[in-house]
Amino acid sequence: MNQPYENKKYAPIGVFDSGVGGLTVAREIMRQLPGERIIYFGDTARVPYGSKSRETITRYSRQIIRFLESKGVKAIVVACNTASAFALEKIRPEMKMPIIGVVKPGAKVAAELTKNGHIGVIGTEGTVGSQIYTEMIHRHNPQAVVLGKACPLFVPLVEEGWLKDSVTVEVAKRYLASFQESDIDTLILGCTHYPLLRSMIQEIMGGKVSLVNPAYETAQGLKRLLEQHQLSNDGGQTREPMYQFYVSDAAEKFKNFANSILPCEIEEAQLIHIEE
Amino acid sequence: MNQPYENKKYAPIGVFDSGVGGLTVAREIMRQLPGERIIYFGDTARVPYGSKSRETITRYSRQIIRFLESKGVKAIVVACNTASAFALEKIRPEMKMPIIGVVKPGAKVAAELTKNGHIGVIGTEGTVGSQIYTEMIHRHNPQAVVLGKACPLFVPLVEEGWLKDSVTVEVAKRYLASFQESDIDTLILGCTHYPLLRSMIQEIMGGKVSLVNPAYETAQGLKRLLEQHQLSNDGGQTREPMYQFYVSDAAEKFKNFANSILPCEIEEAQLIHIEE
Repeated sequence: MNQPYENKKYAPIGVFDSGVGGLTVAREIMRQLPGERIIYFGDTARVPYGSKSRETITRYSRQIIRFLESKGVKAIVVACNTASAFALEKIRPEMKMPIIGVVKPGAKVAAELTKNGHIGVIGTEGTVGSQIYTEMIHRHNPQAVVLGKACPLFVPLVEEGWLKDSVTVEVAKRYLASFQESDIDTLILGCTHYPLLRSMIQEIMGGKVSLVNPAYETAQGLKRLLEQHQLSNDGGQTREPMYQFYVSDAAEKFKNFANSILPCEIEEAQLIHIEE
Repeated sequence: MNQPYENKKYAPIGVFDSGVGGLTVAREIMRQLPGERIIYFGDTARVPYGSKSRETITRYSRQIIRFLESKGVKAIVVACNTASAFALEKIRPEMKMPIIGVVKPGAKVAAELTKNGHIGVIGTEGTVGSQIYTEMIHRHNPQAVVLGKACPLFVPLVEEGWLKDSVTVEVAKRYLASFQESDIDTLILGCTHYPLLRSMIQEIMGGKVSLVNPAYETAQGLKRLLEQHQLSNDGGQTREPMYQFYVSDAAEKFKNFANSILPCEIEEAQLIHIEE
């Protein structure tokens, strides 16, 4: 591992996703841990991950972690629900540095929040099919009833920019109708794109259902993890850029999307060939 | 090149696409050239191609062609508009065997069909942005006015199986509205997924607009190309399977989709790692 930092705590955090969705997680880290530097990788050449298999997503995740390690990161955030669901448990034992996904923090808070023990999860086919949220929720609340629903059109609708569009409302109503006969009081936004549809989903589900955004909880979990490993950055040694962005394709489009949702202005997203 | 066939004309045809869309082209080849064997590759691990860059699509296409060559094919059909638009002209000079894409045959027939010289093209962002259809149409009809419209949600809607759905109708109306003020009399279905939405698109455009399905024309073009190179198969030496299918991910899902649109039953789609 390349580690050019005098003190490891000044090293950046590696954050990765299949594309732009993980920026909602990066955004939370920027807000909650303003002293931390971030190196973000979006796998825009192979997006989406949600319809692909466990083996493929694990292979892609390993390639990306190798890349982030080569950049000298001190910890890794898997800012993608599908990769967290499919690859994290497999990869963690291979890692020397702390690694955190988005599923466990989201599952924990949902298990704590629910009053009637009925929790809904929306996500990609991969995440929902893996049953990972059910498994993680049951660790905290073995009696909880968990209902999953894959929403494969949400990612392309968000990527098309139709965030407040009547078509998206219709698609959302269709997908969320599967929760109407249940009485869930908590719904996990189990894909990093979905917080961008948050207010629409809240309106359809009504005020009695609490939405859980795992991005927020993941940033909290990361904070604790860095403290445990004495890796928190107090904000010193910031000659290097705070935030760096790498993608496997279409850097300009990524940059524009990032600038529409991040609190800071990105000047550049660098293109790399992740397969090599 | 691995060439295990006594006579090259008995070798299969290699057909590839980003995923299932190219099966509409394979289907036309099966219908029009029933003596020909086919090896199909669907790049389901990296689908979709439509939002990715020229460089990435060219790299992916080269990898796939190398794989098909290793299977001893006698000719290659690029059954993907985006790959035809971005990679074909670059790759053709590197090839020893005949290769044909879907864009040129579709453009030619549209240029011949139009009466008022106004032609519409719908496709992915990559295909429409490349202006390749405009360029190819102008070779046959330099005065033609060509209007392009990217329809990025059509592929995920087809992959979701919402072929005759009110949401898909609404999305199609929205996209096709951009042709309302023009007076196009011909519309090219410039993505291999779109023939699966053909009747819906015809209904929205009305009876005065002729739809062009490049899959049909590509099979015609392939027939002529094989004849020119004396590579047509008269149907002899068929001990080997007529049709073989390879994918880079999610073989079971591919098989089910294929069986819903092909005239024959697929028993297996084999999984390979195309990056290696």
